[in-house]
Amino acid sequence: MKNEIFLDNSSTTKPYDDVIDFMSQISKEVYGNPSSLHTKGIAAEREIKKARQLIADSLRAQSNEIIFTSGGTESNNLAIRGYLNPNPRKGKHIITTTVEHPSVMEVYQSLAGKGYTVDYLNVDNDGIISIDELKEKINENTALISIILVNNEVGSIQPIEQLVRIKNQINKNTVIHVDAVQGYGKMEIHPKALGIDLMSLSSHKIHGPKGIGAIFMNQSLKMSPIIYGGGQESMLRSGTENVPGICGFGKAVEISFANINNNHENVRKLKEIFVNSIMENIEKFKIISPINASPYILNVAFEGIKAEVLLHHLEEKSIFVSTGSACSSRKNIHSRVLRSMGVTSKYIEGAIRFSFSHFNTEEQIIKTVEALVDILPRIRKKPKLTN
Amino acid sequence: MKNEIFLDNSSTTKPYDDVIDFMSQISKEVYGNPSSLHTKGIAAEREIKKARQLIADSLRAQSNEIIFTSGGTESNNLAIRGYLNPNPRKGKHIITTTVEHPSVMEVYQSLAGKGYTVDYLNVDNDGIISIDELKEKINENTALISIILVNNEVGSIQPIEQLVRIKNQINKNTVIHVDAVQGYGKMEIHPKALGIDLMSLSSHKIHGPKGIGAIFMNQSLKMSPIIYGGGQESMLRSGTENVPGICGFGKAVEISFANINNNHENVRKLKEIFVNSIMENIEKFKIISPINASPYILNVAFEGIKAEVLLHHLEEKSIFVSTGSACSSRKNIHSRVLRSMGVTSKYIEGAIRFSFSHFNTEEQIIKTVEALVDILPRIRKKPKLTN
Repeated sequence: MKNEIFLDNSSTTKPYDDVIDFMSQISKEVYGNPSSLHTKGIAAEREIKKARQLIADSLRAQSNEIIFTSGGTESNNLAIRGYLNPNPRKGKHIITTTVEHPSVMEVYQSLAGKGYTVDYLNVDNDGIISIDELKEKINENTALISIILVNNEVGSIQPIEQLVRIKNQINKNTVIHVDAVQGYGKMEIHPKALGIDLMSLSSHKIHGPKGIGAIFMNQSLKMSPIIYGGGQESMLRSGTENVPGICGFGKAVEISFANINNNHENVRKLKEIFVNSIMENIEKFKIISPINASPYILNVAFEGIKAEVLLHHLEEKSIFVSTGSACSSRKNIHSRVLRSMGVTSKYIEGAIRFSFSHFNTEEQIIKTVEALVDILPRIRKKPKLTN
Repeated sequence: MKNEIFLDNSSTTKPYDDVIDFMSQISKEVYGNPSSLHTKGIAAEREIKKARQLIADSLRAQSNEIIFTSGGTESNNLAIRGYLNPNPRKGKHIITTTVEHPSVMEVYQSLAGKGYTVDYLNVDNDGIISIDELKEKINENTALISIILVNNEVGSIQPIEQLVRIKNQINKNTVIHVDAVQGYGKMEIHPKALGIDLMSLSSHKIHGPKGIGAIFMNQSLKMSPIIYGGGQESMLRSGTENVPGICGFGKAVEISFANINNNHENVRKLKEIFVNSIMENIEKFKIISPINASPYILNVAFEGIKAEVLLHHLEEKSIFVSTGSACSSRKNIHSRVLRSMGVTSKYIEGAIRFSFSHFNTEEQIIKTVEALVDILPRIRKKPKLTN
């Protein structure tokens, strides 16, 4: 454990020890059902309220604008379908991009068969949408635009401010949903100031527990649930609240935001060292992540290798990375995101996602480059000698 | 904490210490994303597999028949809509009962507006459906029957075997979904032997963590997800798996089933002592739970009181109970379940649900009756003197 180098932090992160301890404490001491009328229920409700406030504060939002879910995937599903279902007259045209997470993409694809016209915005080589294409696509019938803030495979940051400005010029009623799962807790995002209506958050990407997430929701929206029952979470997400999970998420938010700028700066330096060191020591590679991407994600393609082979050689040295995004990495297909960015097959095959945390150290980064220097020549396909 | 008497175990339970410790350990040591290709992912996947097997074994089912969800409410939603959505030609008639949990009732009510005809089976004074009414209602167009095994408010146990037998005589294609949230881990339930197609389970009702549940699913059913994304859980429940939650659930199942008969017998004795002691020491009450109900739930109505007032007096003595079911107890309405059973207003107002666990002791039961003896005369309405 001590010597392991975890560079797969966009897949998931190691929970803070304080998060784990707090969850244990809550599980032992505050085990009531928040719906119960007695003090055991009220104590649980009080802990949820604290966590909700921490998350609201982190977004400069109000606590009644935060709805807890079981994670980022459910948040994306609830934001999109929870808005569209009760608002059939707001338009039957919806927009997203070609570089979304599957939990947005699959929802959009399911809606395409149910009376919605879907437009997918293309991206350039940096993974960024074109504002001109956006202008062309939005119309008076556009109910919703769902866009990922920080791309989970390459780290590209979409121009949300610009998008909202253009949207407001063409159709003020179009609702904006932002999948902020890879950005939240790593950069300041203030949805209300940005004009974002719905935003998805996840806990386990910021050293919080798995199985918990949230959405920020503009209170003026009419929303309906996708899971029905006892009416918890302002009738939008039924089911006994995951009290320890919610508390653990709150704790992770508290810790992450207390150090958000330092963490960002430290990770930025790590990435800089990593990139410089690769450039000095390795040949035949291409940095796929754009220069102004989130420092937490660096996608690098190495020529003449299969990413999965490199991944396994790295894990023999206790270095953990990802090929493409984790949640689709078991599917043996070329990354949709990288294809959308125009990355050629030659590079896609050898694309590795290194994703960082403030728990990573400079020493780990140097060791990783040393490992690459050692492994790459051994696994690279030899050029065929032709005559 | 030490002297508290928690008799609200149908709302939620105190997690086993071993469950909490195991979850902490998994959170610290097995924090990988199960979808990751490296050993950190494989280790997480392996722990999920163990938990899935424990749950399958507890039901005498196969591990590929178990799908993890975020809890009982999601399980009920997924079972019902996940079956109906991809099977529009299996019939547009669906049946349930008048005494379901809101997570079934609300789903049925939402379907009633979407092309489905819904029949609600009535119950008798014991809270049990009528087989004759069932025979009348099932027809060749009946796609699904959803029924609660152990009622959450009174503990009545529905005659599932008989229901399945009748169903098979009239329409073999009708799918049976059983909400087993209040029965699982407290009595043996073997869905395959019983002819159950879908069954919902929850972890936090059996001293496992909140935020995790499962469904048993007959592999021959065509099902579709209600939450879309990365395709986890055999494409039926996307989202990064809640690994510590799943492991904690598995541990709770392991502990509960190792002692299932002993626990049941101990709780049966506690309830017997409780009932006898009430009969000896208290007047003007009515035991609403039928005699052959689950021993884990005892609903008793005390004349001339408001249940909420009694609840708060009991909690002053560190005794925690529920009025009606916890998840709807914040709504100030008379219990739908008790009304369905023909309980008159006089009793509904004073109905308290005592729900037990094997953690309860005989001493606690005696103290509870002593508390009732002390409180009831003080809070009972005085009969008005009329002339």
